[in-house]
Amino acid sequence: GQSSKKAEPKSEEFDGLLVTIKGGIKTITLNRPAKKNALNMEMYEKIAAALRDSNDDDAVNIVVLTGSGDYFCSGNDLANFMNVTDPLAMAKEAKEFLQKYVAAYIDLKKPLIALINGPAVGIAVTVLGLCDAVFSTDKATFTTPFSSLGQSPEGCSSYIFPRVMGYAKASELLFFNQKFTARQAEECGLITQVFPNDRLQAEAWKRINDMAELPVKSLIFSKELVRGRERQLLHEVNRMECERLQERWTSEDFFTLLIFLINLLTIA
Amino acid sequence: GQSSKKAEPKSEEFDGLLVTIKGGIKTITLNRPAKKNALNMEMYEKIAAALRDSNDDDAVNIVVLTGSGDYFCSGNDLANFMNVTDPLAMAKEAKEFLQKYVAAYIDLKKPLIALINGPAVGIAVTVLGLCDAVFSTDKATFTTPFSSLGQSPEGCSSYIFPRVMGYAKASELLFFNQKFTARQAEECGLITQVFPNDRLQAEAWKRINDMAELPVKSLIFSKELVRGRERQLLHEVNRMECERLQERWTSEDFFTLLIFLINLLTIA
Amino acid sequence: GQSSKKAEPKSEEFDGLLVTIKGGIKTITLNRPAKKNALNMEMYEKIAAALRDSNDDDAVNIVVLTGSGDYFCSGNDLANFMNVTDPLAMAKEAKEFLQKYVAAYIDLKKPLIALINGPAVGIAVTVLGLCDAVFSTDKATFTTPFSSLGQSPEGCSSYIFPRVMGYAKASELLFFNQKFTARQAEECGLITQVFPNDRLQAEAWKRINDMAELPVKSLIFSKELVRGRERQLLHEVNRMECERLQERWTSEDFFTLLIFLINLLTIA
Repeated sequence: GQSSKKAEPKSEEFDGLLVTIKGGIKTITLNRPAKKNALNMEMYEKIAAALRDSNDDDAVNIVVLTGSGDYFCSGNDLANFMNVTDPLAMAKEAKEFLQKYVAAYIDLKKPLIALINGPAVGIAVTVLGLCDAVFSTDKATFTTPFSSLGQSPEGCSSYIFPRVMGYAKASELLFFNQKFTARQAEECGLITQVFPNDRLQAEAWKRINDMAELPVKSLIFSKELVRGRERQLLHEVNRMECERLQERWTSEDFFTLLIFLINLLTIA
Repeated sequence: GQSSKKAEPKSEEFDGLLVTIKGGIKTITLNRPAKKNALNMEMYEKIAAALRDSNDDDAVNIVVLTGSGDYFCSGNDLANFMNVTDPLAMAKEAKEFLQKYVAAYIDLKKPLIALINGPAVGIAVTVLGLCDAVFSTDKATFTTPFSSLGQSPEGCSSYIFPRVMGYAKASELLFFNQKFTARQAEECGLITQVFPNDRLQAEAWKRINDMAELPVKSLIFSKELVRGRERQLLHEVNRMECERLQERWTSEDFFTLLIFLINLLTIA
Repeated sequence: GQSSKKAEPKSEEFDGLLVTIKGGIKTITLNRPAKKNALNMEMYEKIAAALRDSNDDDAVNIVVLTGSGDYFCSGNDLANFMNVTDPLAMAKEAKEFLQKYVAAYIDLKKPLIALINGPAVGIAVTVLGLCDAVFSTDKATFTTPFSSLGQSPEGCSSYIFPRVMGYAKASELLFFNQKFTARQAEECGLITQVFPNDRLQAEAWKRINDMAELPVKSLIFSKELVRGRERQLLHEVNRMECERLQERWTSEDFFTLLIFLINLLTIA
């Protein structure tokens, strides 16, 4: 029941991740502030597991994704691609990690709220289209510099973003590396509401706590009506996006960039 | 011809509903102001019939839906669910009424204009996605408190709202019971234009009269190009939403609420 | 290679059209300012060819569509419909021209940027939904007066516009002949960014030059992820829209208008 749920908060801490359950809310906190919460392979895996486990956990009504420190998430950790002996095997493995990661968002039955505490980059932006509400500080920015890195969109953004904001705005993010302010992201429909930075935590958590009190079956069934029809298509979009990235990660465009970055790090 | 059409205004009045045809415009007025134009079973049936009859009526170029008094429509009359001896039979019957009601919007061949004269609640909001233009007073608000009532979305809103406004805004209405102002509803694309309350009738009717002068075949064919491709899918969405509501209306979540309301009414 | 591409600008000039390739950018300029860049049959054909030829031309990374003079484009030149001896044959031929024209947009693999230097009318507006970015002067207006001319939407706008801006706004353009300002067109997601008229050329071309420097394969693959899934459907939408227009061009609504226009021109 509701009261026993609230009486026993649970908490797990992994390298780079903090997961708690309290009052019907599972909170997944990206917790690698020194690296601006960049996602390493373990984090991909643990976040996906935390999402999947929510589906059948009666103690969870809604799921919240947030970050610790000044960044929400700086996206994929490019260190994932460094010190690689077999680039083809690495690209295949990274593709599988990524596809499973996004699949966990697609398959989540309960409402997912992103609480954006700072700048969001790359896959931390694209998966917002798979969230049900996005509350953001006015200090956040949103950027997905895929093409400047020789890459291509993921997180089902190639399908969802044009539907949310139209092609003319989606291309700015997905093709042309433009940075959106929180206000711009709200105006184009990607995020729900922007709060002044010093009121974000208080106001967003008040909303989230209210959400967690709603009849969970109505939430699950309503989300199923909205998202269920698209689930199969989204898995197909996810597969196509990830296969394209696998090719991109072994492309000359990307190697050129990596060598540039490695030289930069070596010099520094 | 055009002149004979305009010469003979017709008017029908039902309990709670006023239907007139004049100058190529069929106007359906919710006319139960003491109940904030809440929809009872007869109104569902008569509105659906008024929409269906427009399709083959040469005197009708466009259809207008509006309300009398201060409210546009407070949604489904919860009295529909009171004094029920057989809840399962009631839920089945209500499901069939609702599905036919929404089907009449889906199948309407001529442009449908909503003229929102005041607050809109529940199904009075969700069917706006099936309207072709929505003119609103700046005093209107828009709210669909489904999950707080243990219910789930209808009116094809689970499909249309995310496509119109994106998931992050649609969830605010469909999952999380947030109230939108007219301005917010316009910014997210649900409504066409907001007018100051004291100019609404004059300005909106000027627009509507102009619309009724346009070549009706171009309007019908243009609407068919926009909506025809989705019609079959919308009927399927409607069916799924209504089946879910049928289940919700017999759920513990909803009974708990009804008992609460009945006690409230009994005390008062 | 990149340097040889940039070293040899190419330029072709047709009646009413100027096509240049320079620095990875193919620029198609509507160049019939005395007619407000209205599209005649030859221009339809040459623009379509210029788009098609881009797909396999290694010297082209992105394509820009713009106009010379004060107008972007006043749409279909109604002179195309004057002095016609066989209206049915004319309607069939015009339908085929139009369908091929729009098909060239649907099939374009490389990013297409519209640089809107002034008012846009009719098909110059509808194809914007097939562009990847739209930069506009604040002096531009956007109008598609289809129904007032007894016609119906083209350019896949019947499918794309509701998805970009919602039904309530799309109907304003596609059914009800409303004129949008550049700001309104931006707010509803049809265009990317509005610039003050005196800064448009400098600022938009700076953006476009940056775009042309991005890895072209990432651009092509990203566009394919976004648009590829819809290509077949868009061709079907295009076919249905064009068949409806073929019927409309032989309708009484349209003949009445043409006779009115011819009389007007004869008197003047």
